[in-house]
Amino acid sequence: MQLKVKILGIDSGGKPFVFLNGKDADELNITASERITIQTKKKIIAIVNISDTSVERGFLGVTEEVRNSLFLKPNSKVTVEIAPFPKSLQFIRNKLSGKKLLYPEIHEIVQDLVDGNLNENEIAAFVTALHLDKIDLDEATSLSRAMVDTGKTLCIDKKIVVDKHSIGGVPGDKTTLLVVPIIASEGFTIPKTSSRAITSVAGTADRAEVLMPVEFTINKMLQILKKSNGCIMWGGAIELAPADDIFVKTEFSLHIDPLLLPSIMSKKKAVGATHLIVDIPTGRGAKMKTTGEADLLARDIIELGRRLGIHTHCIVTFGEQPIGNTIGPALEAKEALEVLMNQKIVPDLIDKTCNIAGSMFELLGKKNGYVLAKKILESGKAEQKMREIIKAQGGNPSIKPEDIQIGKYLLHVRSEKSGQVLWMENRVLVEIGRAAGAPKDKGAGVVFNKKIGDGVEKGELLFTIHAEKSHKLDRVKAILSTQSSIGVGKKSDMLIHKITESPVVQRTFVIDR
Amino acid sequence: MQLKVKILGIDSGGKPFVFLNGKDADELNITASERITIQTKKKIIAIVNISDTSVERGFLGVTEEVRNSLFLKPNSKVTVEIAPFPKSLQFIRNKLSGKKLLYPEIHEIVQDLVDGNLNENEIAAFVTALHLDKIDLDEATSLSRAMVDTGKTLCIDKKIVVDKHSIGGVPGDKTTLLVVPIIASEGFTIPKTSSRAITSVAGTADRAEVLMPVEFTINKMLQILKKSNGCIMWGGAIELAPADDIFVKTEFSLHIDPLLLPSIMSKKKAVGATHLIVDIPTGRGAKMKTTGEADLLARDIIELGRRLGIHTHCIVTFGEQPIGNTIGPALEAKEALEVLMNQKIVPDLIDKTCNIAGSMFELLGKKNGYVLAKKILESGKAEQKMREIIKAQGGNPSIKPEDIQIGKYLLHVRSEKSGQVLWMENRVLVEIGRAAGAPKDKGAGVVFNKKIGDGVEKGELLFTIHAEKSHKLDRVKAILSTQSSIGVGKKSDMLIHKITESPVVQRTFVIDR
Repeated sequence: MQLKVKILGIDSGGKPFVFLNGKDADELNITASERITIQTKKKIIAIVNISDTSVERGFLGVTEEVRNSLFLKPNSKVTVEIAPFPKSLQFIRNKLSGKKLLYPEIHEIVQDLVDGNLNENEIAAFVTALHLDKIDLDEATSLSRAMVDTGKTLCIDKKIVVDKHSIGGVPGDKTTLLVVPIIASEGFTIPKTSSRAITSVAGTADRAEVLMPVEFTINKMLQILKKSNGCIMWGGAIELAPADDIFVKTEFSLHIDPLLLPSIMSKKKAVGATHLIVDIPTGRGAKMKTTGEADLLARDIIELGRRLGIHTHCIVTFGEQPIGNTIGPALEAKEALEVLMNQKIVPDLIDKTCNIAGSMFELLGKKNGYVLAKKILESGKAEQKMREIIKAQGGNPSIKPEDIQIGKYLLHVRSEKSGQVLWMENRVLVEIGRAAGAPKDKGAGVVFNKKIGDGVEKGELLFTIHAEKSHKLDRVKAILSTQSSIGVGKKSDMLIHKITESPVVQRTFVIDR
Repeated sequence: MQLKVKILGIDSGGKPFVFLNGKDADELNITASERITIQTKKKIIAIVNISDTSVERGFLGVTEEVRNSLFLKPNSKVTVEIAPFPKSLQFIRNKLSGKKLLYPEIHEIVQDLVDGNLNENEIAAFVTALHLDKIDLDEATSLSRAMVDTGKTLCIDKKIVVDKHSIGGVPGDKTTLLVVPIIASEGFTIPKTSSRAITSVAGTADRAEVLMPVEFTINKMLQILKKSNGCIMWGGAIELAPADDIFVKTEFSLHIDPLLLPSIMSKKKAVGATHLIVDIPTGRGAKMKTTGEADLLARDIIELGRRLGIHTHCIVTFGEQPIGNTIGPALEAKEALEVLMNQKIVPDLIDKTCNIAGSMFELLGKKNGYVLAKKILESGKAEQKMREIIKAQGGNPSIKPEDIQIGKYLLHVRSEKSGQVLWMENRVLVEIGRAAGAPKDKGAGVVFNKKIGDGVEKGELLFTIHAEKSHKLDRVKAILSTQSSIGVGKKSDMLIHKITESPVVQRTFVIDR
């Protein structure tokens, strides 16, 4: 069928969408969300919306994505046909009927996903099926490989390429800013890519961006690594495993993350990692609630690493409270810099850092990894390497902690009673940090004066909230008035909470990984 | 946040969609597919698309749905806020974590679905979860009730209201056109609503529309029933259980139908049925493949009927070949009329009709239902009642079979060998009928000269394809050249087919129900 182009002037979030008049759709025997081919000199597949008000009969309404991809002009003619049935969709349907999928099938699905040939329905159904039907290690391996094969890869000419990863979920975790320079200063290449916050107060990319630019192409990344051996960049700009960026949107919207393992491991494989440490924060407020769960996850991660040719060790770490004394991009970057400069001693942050870096050293065959890591940190070599990385990425290598801008509007939270800090509610602390403006306002966040186990007097300062805009503190106050963030009491206090009517249960969901 | 309205001039298939600039979305702390409230004098919830090319900062791009619902003008000001988290979404997430849902939770989901507050992702995930997690009878009951409670209902002032339903899947099934007048002629009220074809050659609404109008409001339906005791209408126009029309789109796109039972039973409950016969066509080419499956489905249907206060019997019927000798809206309407007029004897069609009508008579306490139904048919009382219904619905009550327009472009298919008809492939026959133009071209379809068990000579006519447009027969020829529709051979032929490499398996999926 020949149709005339109508430019709609809207974009549709990357997907090739078009609008057909109902009568033309009938004539093509096509219904909404199905696919057509559009032929000019080039031929593409697009997903159909049907709308009689948007386009008259004889016209094809195109979004910016389709216009740009075919260089279309208003009223130019295109040939439109019903698209051949995508094989990937049959494979998704097979998954929905409980079949395990093989590599070529998963590759077909992931390729069509990356090419924009699957509609929202189909992606959501696939992700839901992986979640409910429990993705197994064969499928996780196929998904990891397919996600690597449909994206760019980093080719570093080194026998050993190391990487670290945290499955996330615990706020304030700025360990990557310390681990990368410690490892790189020993001569190992560590091409660290990180994510930005989705549900959290700060992603490592957000933290690093306080100190230096983090958005680079893959070629620029290679050049930087040649200079500094290490880097800390935003993975999203590099187009490693682009399928993950699509899957993660669906997972976020549904609060399920069946693709956790393939997501992590594909990005590691795409940068060519040969040795990997994965941190699994564990505890009530973290992604993994119990050490049993954490150990099972570790088992799968290690096996998946083996299949992908990545030597992997996991460490399970305490995740029931924030790491260190700060949350929020700038506050965390500042704290990491102070620790690198040995200006501040932050025991839990330093312990976690040395455990991760030390485990990596041991995985690489060195002895007493923890001690070695700590020595590097204390000697100032880690600070020196961090400044090299900052310089290589185009930041100011002489940056001082006091140069970092922190939100100047403050709200102090004091204890209403005396006792001991019994618990910290990560979920509520994250909500407070985000209400204060983080991660968008980099200077927003929280500074903690007390952590679990600390003794507290009535009226004593528990934490301080920083904001860049004063009105955002109103939102914080609203949260503080309805939700508990830190529990102070006696060790013998037993009641957690009462349920007096059928509750609407809200669970924490953390997609940052 | 205050934004200015930009009219986009597109509609979005019923859902309230808006477009926000990325910077405004950041400021609102909202991501794509989430919800905002838009306040003028009225307040509605809309689903957010984020697009920097579609709308400048400070503007809210609105689709026709949103414009009409709030009576918006270009550049008028609206107040936009992040919408409160929908409870229904939490319930969907609970379902995704394996929880069974209770009635208030399911009602909340169905209400938000009907109000357009759920995005495609969320609907697809819910439908997929119902499919993979196996919807149980408690949930099916809740879904049926919720689908009734969120739509219109028919209030007939009668103690007994009867209905029949087929779960569908077998082509050529025009029994409703015979069963309704047989039952109505005995003085029972049968407010039959039917669907149009989605995946089939003809729905009962498409068939009936050849004889009379089928689109009425619920009030007009009541008036017609007062005159004729029976009707055959398109359910889609009446807004009974509108949730089903939304669910069915997702189910169709994914080729799963977990909502089969609630879909059927909610529509029956919404018309106030007290007595119901459900036909379950069974066999290789039908929706149910084996009698075991069919019996289990019948068990669930009867129990669901009991819970909803509908006396229900099921009959399992032979579904391995088309019913009667025709498929296609006009051809089937013509065949039904000929049988009603006793001009033609079509044994399988008459037998099925008398089994359904007879079972209903027995469910209502009469004896020898089958014999009674046959007598009514043969006496001409059924024809007379049908003409009353046609008149009440505004058709021509004197219509003769030869008045019905049939496609005049013909393609004859003859047997390539002698033997017996061993099988008929419903899926391929449906594909042929649709390629010929049905259900859109009402005169398109197939007339069969042979059915299973009939002896065939080489060169003898197997079936004839009718089309309204000659070029559509080219599509039919392409199907005939690659796929087998009727198997002629000896009873001893054993080979079904060979598999020589990893096949892409395509299953039949029938959503018409």
